[in-house]
Amino acid sequence: MMPPVFDAVFQEQFASLLVWRRDVRHFRPDPVPDDLLHRLLALAHLAPSVGLSQPWRFVLVDDPARRAAVRANFAACNAAALAGQGTDRAGLYARLKLAGLDTAPRHLGVFVEPEPEQGHGLGRRTMPETVAYSAVAAIHTLWLAARVHGIGLGWVSIVDPAALSAALDVPQNWQFIGYLCLGYPAGEADSPELERQEWETRRPDDTVVIRR
Amino acid sequence: MMPPVFDAVFQEQFASLLVWRRDVRHFRPDPVPDDLLHRLLALAHLAPSVGLSQPWRFVLVDDPARRAAVRANFAACNAAALAGQGTDRAGLYARLKLAGLDTAPRHLGVFVEPEPEQGHGLGRRTMPETVAYSAVAAIHTLWLAARVHGIGLGWVSIVDPAALSAALDVPQNWQFIGYLCLGYPAGEADSPELERQEWETRRPDDTVVIRR
Repeated sequence: MMPPVFDAVFQEQFASLLVWRRDVRHFRPDPVPDDLLHRLLALAHLAPSVGLSQPWRFVLVDDPARRAAVRANFAACNAAALAGQGTDRAGLYARLKLAGLDTAPRHLGVFVEPEPEQGHGLGRRTMPETVAYSAVAAIHTLWLAARVHGIGLGWVSIVDPAALSAALDVPQNWQFIGYLCLGYPAGEADSPELERQEWETRRPDDTVVIRR
Repeated sequence: MMPPVFDAVFQEQFASLLVWRRDVRHFRPDPVPDDLLHRLLALAHLAPSVGLSQPWRFVLVDDPARRAAVRANFAACNAAALAGQGTDRAGLYARLKLAGLDTAPRHLGVFVEPEPEQGHGLGRRTMPETVAYSAVAAIHTLWLAARVHGIGLGWVSIVDPAALSAALDVPQNWQFIGYLCLGYPAGEADSPELERQEWETRRPDDTVVIRR
């Protein structure tokens, strides 16, 4: 196999992919075909992992009762978050749509095996959190792959991890990383919804770089 | 702006990018131009972040004394990891090259601001670790962007985070995520070096998916 050459056209398209990737909360109900979903998961499985441990575990959630439990978990945590807002931001928070759980045709719980045999412990002795970081890289790979194939992804973090793990009946030692909604997006945008809803604005990139 | 359309050619090239992205430990000494490095960091700054908090902080490390401290930190941690290997794997571990710190022309420490004002706390109330996860998404974005532009990236996690933070003299509250080597790679491959060195083999993607 010859290594690929990424020309200027691809470089521009790749930058455009990053610009137009969104955290999607508005989905069309159209189904995502099984073969496409599995193609996306196979691409996510190419993500980097500490010590080549591939510690990510994907849970495809179809059962209506389990989905309802996740929905209730989110609703309770989101209500608590709303109650914790100051008076200046509570109204704004209440108007945000923070999950597409009701319409997204695909639900995916992402976990890690926190002490995987695979990888033989390499690279995580001083930083065991790199196992979780590997799963985040897999989620981000899935996110970009999904956008490349016209599928939107929304990451739901406003949940109680222990209750979510129980609702999905995963092995006791698995660590919850994130709950993902996937489906065809209701719209496209080159700016974050939280910015369009005036919750927050992005800062220039030179504000996050220092020299030593 | 019209949303981009990613055709079948781009989809194949994107898959090829994932297949040929490597954790690089062998670098050519050729410099990485400033404008290219800043282009890559600007792309990384497009990564998703919890509550639009953009909590990642990039530390460009050029000072020889600081680089030497990082090198010594890695050497000590790697020696301890070697000492912890069983007799069956110690010889194999000793032969692995686990960092390109001596030849990579660019060194980058990545940290997070763990309680950022930006984002107003949204999305991290029940899962504060999502701040660190955002920085991991930025690192992974940088990784892919680098490969698109012919630059290799290696993630060094075999370090003591506290000593590394002290060596780089970053704000006390910043949390260390990873130390990155960047430069033109000495070679290209479509399989992980840890697999070619027979440390570990990749598992099929259907082994990491379950249904609920």
